[in-house]
Parts: sequence; structure tokens; C-alpha cells
Amino acid sequence: MIQHAVDRLYEKMDEKKTPLMIGLDPNLAKFPKPLLDEIAKELESEDPSQLRAAAAEVIRRFNFAIIDATADLVPIYKPQSAYYEQYGSAGIKSLEDTIAHARKKGALICLDAKRNDIGSTSTAYAEAHLGQVTVPGREVPVRSADDADFMTVNGYLGTDGVKPFIDVADRDGKGIFVLAKTSNPSAGELQDLLLKDGPSVYQKMAELIDKWGKGNIGKNGYSNVGVVVGATKPEEASKLRVMLPLTLFLMPGYGAQGAAAEKLVNGFYSDGKGAVVNSARGILYASSNKKFAERHPELAKPERFAEAARQATIDSIVEINEALKKADKLPNQWAA
Amino acid sequence: MIQHAVDRLYEKMDEKKTPLMIGLDPNLAKFPKPLLDEIAKELESEDPSQLRAAAAEVIRRFNFAIIDATADLVPIYKPQSAYYEQYGSAGIKSLEDTIAHARKKGALICLDAKRNDIGSTSTAYAEAHLGQVTVPGREVPVRSADDADFMTVNGYLGTDGVKPFIDVADRDGKGIFVLAKTSNPSAGELQDLLLKDGPSVYQKMAELIDKWGKGNIGKNGYSNVGVVVGATKPEEASKLRVMLPLTLFLMPGYGAQGAAAEKLVNGFYSDGKGAVVNSARGILYASSNKKFAERHPELAKPERFAEAARQATIDSIVEINEALKKADKLPNQWAA
Repeated sequence: MIQHAVDRLYEKMDEKKTPLMIGLDPNLAKFPKPLLDEIAKELESEDPSQLRAAAAEVIRRFNFAIIDATADLVPIYKPQSAYYEQYGSAGIKSLEDTIAHARKKGALICLDAKRNDIGSTSTAYAEAHLGQVTVPGREVPVRSADDADFMTVNGYLGTDGVKPFIDVADRDGKGIFVLAKTSNPSAGELQDLLLKDGPSVYQKMAELIDKWGKGNIGKNGYSNVGVVVGATKPEEASKLRVMLPLTLFLMPGYGAQGAAAEKLVNGFYSDGKGAVVNSARGILYASSNKKFAERHPELAKPERFAEAARQATIDSIVEINEALKKADKLPNQWAA
Repeated sequence: MIQHAVDRLYEKMDEKKTPLMIGLDPNLAKFPKPLLDEIAKELESEDPSQLRAAAAEVIRRFNFAIIDATADLVPIYKPQSAYYEQYGSAGIKSLEDTIAHARKKGALICLDAKRNDIGSTSTAYAEAHLGQVTVPGREVPVRSADDADFMTVNGYLGTDGVKPFIDVADRDGKGIFVLAKTSNPSAGELQDLLLKDGPSVYQKMAELIDKWGKGNIGKNGYSNVGVVVGATKPEEASKLRVMLPLTLFLMPGYGAQGAAAEKLVNGFYSDGKGAVVNSARGILYASSNKKFAERHPELAKPERFAEAARQATIDSIVEINEALKKADKLPNQWAA
């Protein structure tokens, strides 16, 4: 019997006492100099494929250091596919290695890829990142290279674009998060438009998400079809929390994108459940962050980037749990 | 001076006298047996990474054979990223090799990836597939591994999700196609909903596409921001053709998805310009297609799959140009 993806996630959240997810968005321009120096010669290669391989290698080292420094603290990591795709197949290999390393440390994975297509193409995306590889003449499939626990999906194409992801998720005990109201300034251009016979576009998307998710509810009461709700939009989070009682929220935008912890609490129920909260830049690049340096001057050094990331993770967990407590939403079992 | 992407495409279309684009959607379950037999032992490997590498190798051989058999006939190929992502980094390497091979044969490339995100993440996707790799301490960037001419984009996140793709396209003489009305049965669930203060969701998306595209019009009169319009929806194609006079249409769904050539013509102007037409399965797997076998029994053999693909390409070109001629839309310079 395969365990429901959200139940697995709640086990991990209860173990770590936090809904914090660390976003693995490697950006070489922000990497600590000592790490880049280790591989400076390779990064100067005139051969593009060697250059990409060197970039992938420094991403691997950075991510492994971040994971080693934080894996005991958080339930789940969210690598953002774009930052790996930049370096072609070498970059994707470093993504696969990153996922495998995090998994070895006991963490769950949500691949942020926002994939979308129709029919057999959606199935291929779902198998690629959550599922398995089937080849003709071979009876037993093997797990995909990513084998993530969750992935993000864009639902603009409607049911037959999203259903293939759900089918793979149902079969393999995985989950998806579908975009509804995103965290960017121009998200509203399309998503906020009011419909003639109903609410707004994003609320209609939420209705579809609710419908798609009804088929597979775990024992924690959540569907394996979650929703992405920008942490910068607390009003929408409140509305969606009412509309989507069985839907887990993935809330990006905490920290560097400007959403404070108190803005997040609308995504949670009074039992402290209902959302995971992603932070990437605020943790990954804490050692070069001014606000972090004020609090922890001794860690604001490039050679201490992994320790700084650990401290920023601890600070974020405390901050989020304090905000939940203030809103009377901290789960009893998470109280320190 | 970098040539405009759509002008480059029109040069190729005029050279080949066709708006046909071949979709490279490799599906091992449909591959000809003799090709699979070449690599049968490797495809049985118990080691997942060897299995994926073997699958990637057979995709490479299949694609190279298709490209070698058709590159003199068509202006552009459209690989669908999902089918390569299934095999992890090895699959992505076979995508890169496929793109490089097609480019060496003089063809253009549209990567069908339907990427979408916000800000720096959208920039990373755009650089990954259309742009360049920058690493710290290195002044001259190198081209990305894909370096496609066009890619598909999902615009659900609005202007600041799409603008980074356009910025890279403008800088490097590339183009994008944004989804508006897709070709799948449930596309209308969200896209057809009527708005309170205006037309439908997909028409609003079209308005945004029109706005986004105004900044960069080539000498053929088309923007480097195109639109994806399902070939199965001739009524919508007509409406959009009027709404989007400067926008090139990418029309998937011809052939196997059920759209006949006469359904396509609404995407074209009277000068025969305005659209590219994608066909994948109907060409790639012609040797095992019943209708094709009726017309060309001698080619309906798995060992002749590449010749069959060539013949199916020729048949498609003739069929599309005849439909254009019947609609009085065949460009003079394309007449045989």
C-alpha cells in the first residue's frame, strides 16, 4: 500500500516541526567566491560543454553543502528546474544528483517545473518527474531519474492537461501543486479578471483544482492535488483557504520576495495545517544578506555560506512558528 | 545586425515552399522494431541510468534518421521537451544532439516546452533554451546548449512572466509562441469563459500577446511574439487572425490530432502567410499508419520508417498547399 504524498509530507513536517520548504534556486552570480574559486579554471573554458559541466559541478557542490547543513531541519526541498536547465544536460544531471542527495538525507522533493501540455505529452512530463520509465519489451519499469514527491503544474489547458499528472500521482503516491494566484506583480492581468458568470479567473481555476483533487484525499484530510498561492497575496490566500478546504497550499514568496511571516498565516487552518512555505534566496544566500549580517555578523562571510544558510533556516522556522502561534494556529506538536 | 526570427523563418519557408513544421515527439512504444532491436540488450539493463542512456541513444538514432530523410523538405522542426525529459539528463543530451543535427542540416528549431514562471526564473528558462550561459568572472557568454530559434511559453502569469522571454528573444534574434487557445478537448474549461468586461479568457490572452508583440516587428510584418492556436479550432483561428494581424500562428493538431488541411487555412492571410503548421505522429510513425499504408503499401514497413516519414512529409506539404490554393491563399512563390 503506497502512502499518500501529503501524509508523507505531514509526517516529515511533524518530525521537523515546521512547514518550511527550502527552494534550491542556484544562481552562480550569487554563489560565494571561495566556492567559485575552487572551479575557476574550468569556468573559463572556451568549450561550451566544458563550461556548462563546470557550472553544473559548482551547483552540485553548493547544493550538497546547503542540504548537508539543513536536512535535519526541514521536511522538503524545492529545486527550481529553470536554474538547472540553463546548463543543459549537465545541469539536469546536477539536478538529479541534488534530488538523490536530499532524498538520501531523508527529505522530500517538490520539483518546481510548472509543466503543462495535453494528453500523452502531459503523461510524459508526469512520468519524467514523478513516475517511471517504460521501454518496449521490458515488463518492469524503472523509476524516473527525478522521482520527485511533488511537482508544480500550470492548469491553463484544463482537465485533459492536468489529469495525466494526477493519474501518475495517484498510481505512485505522489502529488502536484497547480498554479492559481501567483506571487508576481502582474499576476492579476489575467488571473484577477472577473468572469461573466462567476468569480475571477483564478477562483475558477481554484474550482477546477478542487474538483480535480476530490478523488484522492489522504488520512490528514488533504488531496494530492495542491495549489500554489503567492505568499505576497494574503487576501487571496484567505479566500482560497475557504474555497479549497481539502487542498494543501504551496506558498512561495516568503523572505526575499517580500512576504513576511504574518502574511502567510491566512493559508493555514486553526490546527496549524494547510500550507507549506517556500524560502529560497533568503536562506541560500544568507551569508551575503544585509539584514542577516546585522543579526549574525560572524556568519556573514562567504566561506561560511552553509552555516549561514543553516542559521537562516532556524531563524525562518522560529519566525513562521511565532507568527502561527500569534495567530493561534501553531500545532500543539510543533510547540518547542 | 541580428536577423529577426520570423524573417529567418520566412526565408526558410519560401525556400522549402511550405509552412510545415515536423514535430519531433519520440515515443519508444511507436518506434520501428528493427531500430529497437539494434539496442535491445541495453534496453534490458537493470541499471536505471544505463536503461535511460539506451533509450536516449535509440531516440537519437530515430531522430537523426527522420531529420536526414526530411531536412531538405521542411523549414523547421519542433521537438517536444517532455519526451526527452522522460529519460533524465541522458534524454536531454539526446535533445541537444537532435537540435544540433537539425541545425547542421540548415533547419530552424522551435522547442515546445511551454515554460512559464516569473522574473529571474523566466529569464533562466529563456537563456536555457534561446539564449546564453553567463558565469561569474567570464566576460563573453557562450550560447546555451539548446540555442533554439523559437520556444513555446504559457502566459498565465502575465507580463512579468513573459517579458523576460521577450527580452532574451529581442537580444538574440529569437522568438516565442504563447499559448492562447489550445487544441485539446477541455481547453475551453478556462480559455472559453466569458469575461465580465470583455471577451473570453483566450481572447484576453490574445490581447496581451498583441501588446507584448508590438515592440519587435520584422520586415515580413510579423512580431517575434507568436501565438499557439490549435488547428482543430478553425472558428477561433478566424477570430484570432483578425485580432492579431502582426502575430505568427503556430498551429499544432494537423494530421494525427484530427485537423484536416482545410481547417488550417483560417490561420493564413490571402498572401498565404501568417502560420506554421505542425505535424508529428502522422509523419514520424507513417510506416505503421493504416491510411498511409493504403496510399503507399511499399513503404508501410518498419525498416522503411525514414522513407515513409519522407513520403508522409511530401504528402502533407502537397495537401496543405492544395488547401491553401483552394482557399486562394497559396503564395505565388510557393506554387510548384
